[in-house]
Amino acid sequence: MRIAIASDHAAVDLKAALAEWLREQGHDVNDLGPQAGESVDYPDYGYKLAGEIAAGRAERGIALCGSGIGISIAVNRHPALRCALVSEPLSATLCREHNDANAIAMGARLIGLDMAKACVTAFLTTDFGGDRHVRRVGKLGTPPVPAQID
Amino acid sequence: MRIAIASDHAAVDLKAALAEWLREQGHDVNDLGPQAGESVDYPDYGYKLAGEIAAGRAERGIALCGSGIGISIAVNRHPALRCALVSEPLSATLCREHNDANAIAMGARLIGLDMAKACVTAFLTTDFGGDRHVRRVGKLGTPPVPAQID
Repeated sequence: MRIAIASDHAAVDLKAALAEWLREQGHDVNDLGPQAGESVDYPDYGYKLAGEIAAGRAERGIALCGSGIGISIAVNRHPALRCALVSEPLSATLCREHNDANAIAMGARLIGLDMAKACVTAFLTTDFGGDRHVRRVGKLGTPPVPAQID
Repeated sequence: MRIAIASDHAAVDLKAALAEWLREQGHDVNDLGPQAGESVDYPDYGYKLAGEIAAGRAERGIALCGSGIGISIAVNRHPALRCALVSEPLSATLCREHNDANAIAMGARLIGLDMAKACVTAFLTTDFGGDRHVRRVGKLGTPPVPAQID
């Protein structure tokens, strides 16, 4: 599977470990940065990841920062992205079954490497459930613009 | 504090319990629905919550669905909203300190009432850390439009 992965400076080690592990499994992994040592702003990397998925250059995305919160918000700014912030595999399974998530976010300062791997495995191996979820997922792709949402 | 709360059908009981508990503490709680018994689509209620916060009719939002995932994605479609999907109080604290979150999402099928209350308390009582986080939060308010993000 073509997987894009991005982070901020707090999560470069987790990013590198997951990228290596995914490549060992035969996945085509595009590490969008940053490199170790840079201090960066998580929105920039969240938007970069969203762009890769939205453009079809990757099928799934993995977004990492210290808590996972900031980069998950950034990724979800894009109406073509459905990014679940997860810390355990059940949520990573549910985000595929119910929300057809094309990205997950995790917090490098909050979960360990093996838990992150378990989340990624659930995310990559679970199919979308379809059915009633299709209509709901469709609505996520057509959010009201701010002027209308009020 | 003026608090808006919204959910889908899977989380109406948690919504009612949190709304009552918050009112007992003196908060001004606006329950945006749904009522028990309705089957609804979580994006509709996430967008409704986002609209309340963006319009200034509530200072903070609480968004609930079965896993918390779907409604967190919907709320974060609005560039004025910063919604953290949380399942424990540390993340609820960090989302205020680092991301100036104005909403949290939780999964009614994944966490219990006391854990949800602990998350809400952390969310309502923690101040934004300012400093380097201001620039990053600012970037969340000006996401690239889809045509530019590619």
